Amino acid sequence: MEFLVRTENLLPHDTPEEVRDQLKKGERERAMELREAGILKRLWRVPGRNATVGLYEAEDPAALHDALTSLPMWKWMDITVEALATHPQER
Amino acid sequence: MEFLVRTENLLPHDTPEEVRDQLKKGERERAMELREAGILKRLWRVPGRNATVGLYEAEDPAALHDALTSLPMWKWMDITVEALATHPQER
Amino acid sequence: MEFLVRTENLLPHDTPEEVRDQLKKGERERAMELREAGILKRLWRVPGRNATVGLYEAEDPAALHDALTSLPMWKWMDITVEALATHPQER
Amino acid sequence: MEFLVRTENLLPHDTPEEVRDQLKKGERERAMELREAGILKRLWRVPGRNATVGLYEAEDPAALHDALTSLPMWKWMDITVEALATHPQER
Amino acid sequence: MEFLVRTENLLPHDTPEEVRDQLKKGERERAMELREAGILKRLWRVPGRNATVGLYEAEDPAALHDALTSLPMWKWMDITVEALATHPQER
Amino acid sequence: MEFLVRTENLLPHDTPEEVRDQLKKGERERAMELREAGILKRLWRVPGRNATVGLYEAEDPAALHDALTSLPMWKWMDITVEALATHPQER
Amino acid sequence: MEFLVRTENLLPHDTPEEVRDQLKKGERERAMELREAGILKRLWRVPGRNATVGLYEAEDPAALHDALTSLPMWKWMDITVEALATHPQER
Amino acid sequence: MEFLVRTENLLPHDTPEEVRDQLKKGERERAMELREAGILKRLWRVPGRNATVGLYEAEDPAALHDALTSLPMWKWMDITVEALATHPQER
Amino acid sequence: MEFLVRTENLLPHDTPEEVRDQLKKGERERAMELREAGILKRLWRVPGRNATVGLYEAEDPAALHDALTSLPMWKWMDITVEALATHPQER
Amino acid sequence: MEFLVRTENLLPHDTPEEVRDQLKKGERERAMELREAGILKRLWRVPGRNATVGLYEAEDPAALHDALTSLPMWKWMDITVEALATHPQER
Repeated sequence: MEFLVRTENLLPHDTPEEVRDQLKKGERERAMELREAGILKRLWRVPGRNATVGLYEAEDPAALHDALTSLPMWKWMDITVEALATHPQER
Repeated sequence: MEFLVRTENLLPHDTPEEVRDQLKKGERERAMELREAGILKRLWRVPGRNATVGLYEAEDPAALHDALTSLPMWKWMDITVEALATHPQER
Repeated sequence: MEFLVRTENLLPHDTPEEVRDQLKKGERERAMELREAGILKRLWRVPGRNATVGLYEAEDPAALHDALTSLPMWKWMDITVEALATHPQER
Repeated sequence: MEFLVRTENLLPHDTPEEVRDQLKKGERERAMELREAGILKRLWRVPGRNATVGLYEAEDPAALHDALTSLPMWKWMDITVEALATHPQER
Repeated sequence: MEFLVRTENLLPHDTPEEVRDQLKKGERERAMELREAGILKRLWRVPGRNATVGLYEAEDPAALHDALTSLPMWKWMDITVEALATHPQER
Repeated sequence: MEFLVRTENLLPHDTPEEVRDQLKKGERERAMELREAGILKRLWRVPGRNATVGLYEAEDPAALHDALTSLPMWKWMDITVEALATHPQER
Repeated sequence: MEFLVRTENLLPHDTPEEVRDQLKKGERERAMELREAGILKRLWRVPGRNATVGLYEAEDPAALHDALTSLPMWKWMDITVEALATHPQER
Repeated sequence: MEFLVRTENLLPHDTPEEVRDQLKKGERERAMELREAGILKRLWRVPGRNATVGLYEAEDPAALHDALTSLPMWKWMDITVEALATHPQER
Repeated sequence: MEFLVRTENLLPHDTPEEVRDQLKKGERERAMELREAGILKRLWRVPGRNATVGLYEAEDPAALHDALTSLPMWKWMDITVEALATHPQER
Repeated sequence: MEFLVRTENLLPHDTPEEVRDQLKKGERERAMELREAGILKRLWRVPGRNATVGLYEAEDPAALHDALTSLPMWKWMDITVEALATHPQER
């Protein structure tokens, strides 16, 4: 099933550049793995914000939760999830 | 997977008593069927309102949608759905 | 550019079945054309509601507006649009 | 009577791992006791968040308050409670 | 247990004066009965509005629901209920 | 005149236990004085939260403000006040 | 004591011009009386809307309620009231 | 001074086509006059909605109110106005 | 033109008493000057809060902005401004 | 295409004056460059707040995002973006 996932990155502004870079790098790598696993299907930026909208696919909400918490930035992200139903036009 | 489902019944106040009774009866019967099918697991009233909170189980959001739209009152109900993730304590 | 589009269908409950069916049929046909034109890329149902989430692509907001208002149901739909920015991971 | 209880865990990100682990352990143990006492009946995760939805049963709101404040994490949790009325279908 | 109950009266403006008066009279009489039964303990007007705040006491939310739906105006009232916990200062 | 007063206690979690206890003690004592003065008439806990709902009586909003700011915890409380009108049923 | 009062006029669009004019005239006359009685102290328009912000003075919320409900348009107005406390700078 | 003005057009769906066309024509003509008078400076559509965002200039809120209420559609429009302050960069 | 101005004072609780007193004193003095200049016309306390509602008069929003930012506490105040239109009854 | 952009500046109050001045200077210089590039077309202050409303033009949301994140204050700004559609009156 598919989910619409919104994230806001709340990493404190005074995080050392080094730590921030390492987190960003880890974030990109883990995102790439989630893409390859077919879990992260699309990702957009919310213009003007350190925030994203993503389209995910996972077996169920628990599997999605595990995918999202595997992101190194998870701890600092405010995330909201919306479960989507397949539309008859696309069945 | 389980869902928390909130409903508000917006059937117009001037609906003829006869129509209303028939809808209520059909609603109860369909709800009973959904219970027997293991889809409707629990149902509560929101005190003071013509509204409910329900715990549903369905294969995915599309299956839940089909179950909810099978209720005779569906057309007049404002419904919001929240997908729940299994908690590790209950796995 | 891509847009996230949410619709709520507010067609009155007392719309004659015949009118409703004709509108639905026209809606499906127009949606199919928008898909073929590459404007409507994905469509989901919001579970439990007469509502959708859609992923659209259009040259700009005015072109998207024209596409949405070309839907026969448009007059009865409450629509919100969110412009999405391409994410560097997908460039 | 039954209550729907939502929690958001706001424990600061910079809490030492040791303290956090001890709190989590205490939380699980106390939750288990509340289950055994028939107070905590079901618990779900809100996908993507450090948050839960729970179904509790207690004699009254004051007894529920005592149960919730007995959780070691209580001090850092933002909690909202909704009192549910038994539905005639389940009487 | 005690509840804080807010009501907004949405009786249509074009209700015939006669019907409205009869409903108001019935409302007052039923409210008086609820007071005598110890269920309705205090009632205030929200200044400027056709709305009230009330303090109710009932065994549980289901009993409160029955009391509120016994009011002749119930059908036209938008009601929200908040369950209150006894404060240690008043135990 | 009577007021409905909601408080949320935002005292920081890392306040030393000693300071917290002294504040709580002072709070109880001042609340008791306000009760004796007929200003604080009822007090409830919002279940699950460090928050209260109170029924106050004061000559006017300025007098209520003075009563609330006399509470030792006032500085850390987020307070909202609603002025209530006497209901004709209680005149 | 003083109150900040916001009104939104929801008189239906299809009200006959004659009825509307009569209501407006009655409204102006009653407002003038409230001014002379020292109850309505200031009145502003919310630009672009059929809405006002007013500064009222009344003995208590019940007296204000009586003044507001004496306006011929009251039945169609959505009104919110905020009780203001005298500021020490103006004592 | 300049104002940001948002409008939502709530003209009922069942308005006869003839009335609607006449209103639209009158709206365009009046808008053109407001442009020529330097009052309406820019106008955008909110994509997907029968709604606009406009930049207006008027001597004060009362003058803006008069301009907006001179639009033939005004009666059916939900309008919100935000007064903007000149930015030092543009002085 | 006149403005309704709401302020919430967010000065941190741990501000040294000396700094706080000096700021309050400067605030009162500047407020007095704004009164004498005819800019600050009325000021109320929001009961229970460190917040005010004020009635200001200024040539335009930019002039009001300059007046508000001249208050020593401005840096710590959350301020919202609403431009009011003269009501025909007061012209 | 054009965008309406709202910013709230959340730079901490205890930022050293020197750092703040340098940021402000850089902000003005970058804003001037964006004006010259035709990206920043208009800018207003929200009266009473450290906030702005801006009218921007950019090829798409990603280009706008790049422009906004090039502002030295970006890290501390809460920004919301609204994509506007050209109105037929201005085509």
